[in-house]
Amino acid sequence: MRLRNKPWAKDFINSHPKIVEQNPKAIRGAWKERFGIDQPLYVEVGTGKGRFVNELAKAENANIIGVEKYESVIISAVETAVNEPKDNLVFLQQDVTELTEFFAPNEIDRLYINFTDPWPKNRHAKRRLTHAGFLAKYEEVLKDGAEIHFKTDNQQLFEYSLESLTEYGFYVKNVSLDLHNSGMKNNIMTEYEQKFSSNGMRIYRLEARLHSKK
Amino acid sequence: MRLRNKPWAKDFINSHPKIVEQNPKAIRGAWKERFGIDQPLYVEVGTGKGRFVNELAKAENANIIGVEKYESVIISAVETAVNEPKDNLVFLQQDVTELTEFFAPNEIDRLYINFTDPWPKNRHAKRRLTHAGFLAKYEEVLKDGAEIHFKTDNQQLFEYSLESLTEYGFYVKNVSLDLHNSGMKNNIMTEYEQKFSSNGMRIYRLEARLHSKK
Repeated sequence: MRLRNKPWAKDFINSHPKIVEQNPKAIRGAWKERFGIDQPLYVEVGTGKGRFVNELAKAENANIIGVEKYESVIISAVETAVNEPKDNLVFLQQDVTELTEFFAPNEIDRLYINFTDPWPKNRHAKRRLTHAGFLAKYEEVLKDGAEIHFKTDNQQLFEYSLESLTEYGFYVKNVSLDLHNSGMKNNIMTEYEQKFSSNGMRIYRLEARLHSKK
Repeated sequence: MRLRNKPWAKDFINSHPKIVEQNPKAIRGAWKERFGIDQPLYVEVGTGKGRFVNELAKAENANIIGVEKYESVIISAVETAVNEPKDNLVFLQQDVTELTEFFAPNEIDRLYINFTDPWPKNRHAKRRLTHAGFLAKYEEVLKDGAEIHFKTDNQQLFEYSLESLTEYGFYVKNVSLDLHNSGMKNNIMTEYEQKFSSNGMRIYRLEARLHSKK
């Protein structure tokens, strides 16, 4: 998405250290204690403007973490969380490539990837959040039997992700090739999904689970 | 598909024993000798009116077998093969449930499933040609590393097949969620595919390969 420079963003983020964890490496393996509630940990990578995680935190009895690299984007997610405070929602303004430095092995109960950048050029395939390089990181931090929930409107990214996930050793469940005509209940929409759902574009969705951890 | 009774079909089939093998159980494990050519064996299950296998036999240096239960349907496939003789094409008018009685373990190099009956009701799921019950039979007769090539226009069947195949232990390659807009070359169309390709209906396709034989 187009990034606008917001000079006040850094100060705003720094002024909410409870909502945006400044030193996630220090919390690695102890997120349950950080939240103070013993419930499952769900993480969204590439959380963008954060509508999804803000709604998810209201809907689920789970500790929720949204990871987003860009200050000028995550600021919207943080604003929503400030206006509608939730005890079970924390943001990391961090790069997903460092995921295993923020989470200990087997610490995450579910991972969400929603409408991530498709990086359509083959030479950028490694940047796709469903590339084997990222899947190896997810495998490390996901509990045995934990699921990845993945949504996109990009047909080519969905095709690629089916291939990448299953070659890596995941199997897929609850696949939908047209989510908004599938009768799925309680679907939480991202900003992007809300914007494009009404114009007839298909939304693709799957859940992926490892056959067994390596 | 709607089946019309064709009283002359049985006689016609019986009069072409070279094209329609009458006793496939006797050939089990010896199809290479039956064809008299040492080349890969490709099998289509649910071959219907046989346009696909007739074209495949012309395009590939492979021995091709089309398996179709219904006399009144396979008759069209046989007629085409009689009119355009091919040394590398044989039909079995047989039930796919008996596949392992016609083929020895590791005898098949590739399996095709094209526009098979979706059996949309859950209670009929076992009849779908991508149900685990059939996958177990395919596993037995497929060589290590052999692929299943699957096409359908039925979205729900494709979703189901992705789940069933990957849960069983297959991974998917060359997935296309809109085959006729994918730029794929040398796609051989079935009768059904020709009929529906022009009206904008999506064709779904995948190739599946086992991680490792059990």
